[in-house]
Amino acid sequence: MFSVFSIDGGVVAPQGFYCDGVSAGLKKDNGLDVAFIYADSLCEVEGIFTKNKFCAAPILHFKSYPKDFKTNFVLVNSKNANALTGDEGLESVKEVLGGLQYRFSGIQNPIMSSTGVIGVQLPKVKIIESFNKFDLSQKNHNNAAEAIMTTDSFSKTIAFEVVLEDKRSFRIGAMCKGAGMINPSLATMLCFITTDASIPKRDMQELLLKAADSTFNAISVDGDTSTNDTVLLLSNGKSGVYDKEAFLFTLEKVMHKLATDIVRDGEGATKLVAFEVKGAKNKEEAKRGAKALSQSLLVKTALFGCDPNWGRIASTIGASGITCNPKTLEIYFGDVCVYQKGVIYFNEEYEQKAAEILKQDSFKITCVLGVGEGAFVAYGCDLGYEYVKINADYRS
Amino acid sequence: MFSVFSIDGGVVAPQGFYCDGVSAGLKKDNGLDVAFIYADSLCEVEGIFTKNKFCAAPILHFKSYPKDFKTNFVLVNSKNANALTGDEGLESVKEVLGGLQYRFSGIQNPIMSSTGVIGVQLPKVKIIESFNKFDLSQKNHNNAAEAIMTTDSFSKTIAFEVVLEDKRSFRIGAMCKGAGMINPSLATMLCFITTDASIPKRDMQELLLKAADSTFNAISVDGDTSTNDTVLLLSNGKSGVYDKEAFLFTLEKVMHKLATDIVRDGEGATKLVAFEVKGAKNKEEAKRGAKALSQSLLVKTALFGCDPNWGRIASTIGASGITCNPKTLEIYFGDVCVYQKGVIYFNEEYEQKAAEILKQDSFKITCVLGVGEGAFVAYGCDLGYEYVKINADYRS
Repeated sequence: MFSVFSIDGGVVAPQGFYCDGVSAGLKKDNGLDVAFIYADSLCEVEGIFTKNKFCAAPILHFKSYPKDFKTNFVLVNSKNANALTGDEGLESVKEVLGGLQYRFSGIQNPIMSSTGVIGVQLPKVKIIESFNKFDLSQKNHNNAAEAIMTTDSFSKTIAFEVVLEDKRSFRIGAMCKGAGMINPSLATMLCFITTDASIPKRDMQELLLKAADSTFNAISVDGDTSTNDTVLLLSNGKSGVYDKEAFLFTLEKVMHKLATDIVRDGEGATKLVAFEVKGAKNKEEAKRGAKALSQSLLVKTALFGCDPNWGRIASTIGASGITCNPKTLEIYFGDVCVYQKGVIYFNEEYEQKAAEILKQDSFKITCVLGVGEGAFVAYGCDLGYEYVKINADYRS
Repeated sequence: MFSVFSIDGGVVAPQGFYCDGVSAGLKKDNGLDVAFIYADSLCEVEGIFTKNKFCAAPILHFKSYPKDFKTNFVLVNSKNANALTGDEGLESVKEVLGGLQYRFSGIQNPIMSSTGVIGVQLPKVKIIESFNKFDLSQKNHNNAAEAIMTTDSFSKTIAFEVVLEDKRSFRIGAMCKGAGMINPSLATMLCFITTDASIPKRDMQELLLKAADSTFNAISVDGDTSTNDTVLLLSNGKSGVYDKEAFLFTLEKVMHKLATDIVRDGEGATKLVAFEVKGAKNKEEAKRGAKALSQSLLVKTALFGCDPNWGRIASTIGASGITCNPKTLEIYFGDVCVYQKGVIYFNEEYEQKAAEILKQDSFKITCVLGVGEGAFVAYGCDLGYEYVKINADYRS
């Protein structure tokens, strides 16, 4: 048994972490664009990174550290992804981090993370000059969360305190940015999680992957994968407290909230939709069906128009290649069943009821396949004029 | 050696075929909505159908005929897909075709094909009543092509005469409809091809699949697959003439024109884009990369905005899972190289040149991967406000 409480403080809620966001002049109007997370003792670190073959220079740099390295510093910039920038891009990361270590003594194995335009060399001088504004004793987690934003319309930060039965406690804090799974001219998904739990190194990767499966790997705004996607977990063990079950539960809670925040903030999105596929042959097929729904342009535009067009739902499931049968299929908008095992309930009354559900800010669409026990929930959003506007007009 | 001439007549350009389009009152304002193709002698027939698991009742009916059956009649309706309509939907096809055979003697193994709203039972009485308007001696190919349209903004019909070296000739004609690869509430892709070439039955499937690979299977408007997609080839052998090479060449020409017409008529599309991937590990990887580009929302919206955002092109290739390397990659808009093997040419001059190309009605984007010999061209279109409007607002 354990209790989980929502607390303030974001990434600096756990003991021993410090952060801030400053302006290096990368964004217009002196917006905050460079953030740091500093730990006053060395942390274990685990990461999950994009599978994009053209992964960005800071990710290549991370991977160049020896296995099981420890760190006490994460530097993040927005406005520039440092991706497709070749050897020069990687050299820039080293130079910037070298400058950081020159400016502050005691920084070990610093990590860099970037988001923004692809294919433009990093404005390294501006970033290095901004170190003069760093104060490592700060805990301005709102500034840090703001500095890593790109097309995000709100900053995304969260923290929980976990109290075990014996009253001992640890904390997990996090911040993230993202308003499209990808948006390579300007955005991507970055997430930084800190904890003072004394989690063993071997559990870090296991629990991070487990929690990502049902959270960050279950969301889609536009179905693409960025060159920079990163989820980092830093742990300094300062609380001396750990419980695996409680940690996983809370980590999932942190990542679920941030993941659905990203979808909710999806470019031009007006609603958050949970696409649930149940009764699939297995979990893999349920996931494929649920993600196909969350990525279908026709489903997304129908949802934007509040059109309970269940034919598009059925057709997308049928086209996804998973095992299904019209005689065992059921489709629900919220709790309104519109199609059940060959019977179409879709008269005017049902259409109206279903349309009412689609007008809500957030709702669930369920497909029961009736061929097995596999289940998965994917999270997506609608697609409207605003998405086109953001993505077509951005650089003009 | 052979010569190919564009001729008038569409599906009735080959000898022995007749067609017309009539109104059964399914569309508003008495628009044409039922079409037929009649042959005065029995035809060999081959088809390619959707891989959607929920394929429509008329396709199930087609597949219920014995292997190698012959036919002399194709009936097509728009406005109703007869998909997800269960046993009743299949019974409706049989009743409608029974009514047809009752009305006209000599019709053998008639084929039905439908397109329109999913999940609504076929208005079979209206369709059967429309048979009174059929005149099997008509050759109104424009009416037929119009009757099968749904969200199409123009009808799609084509015919060629093929003259062999010895002056003997045969013809291939076709009509098709489609303005989204799928649009299940109202549209789908149907194509009917007729020929009087004396093509052996065994060549029909082989050449149809071969030609589809680089044409209908290479296009994407929204990345979905309908419940009703159908390509039919009818051959009556009346010309007594056949040449395999000439037939394949001309069949590909027919299907390429109709396929690119569909993309050009893509819902809300303002430009036709050829996405070429060359130097891939193999053809399969080239195809995967090219189709990923043609389906990426971020690429499509950038093209709509005439934004030569090559980072989105690179990132989509990188995310597609194919073998690639930033140090061998080259990216071209038309013939303007913007990225070559690690060198970014993207200054203001190049950006302007590239933007000019994107303002054209049709252009090519090329990615040279430099890792092998595989090549493929996929065809796609941009995505703008009009797409959202058509798909979000249709049923309201």
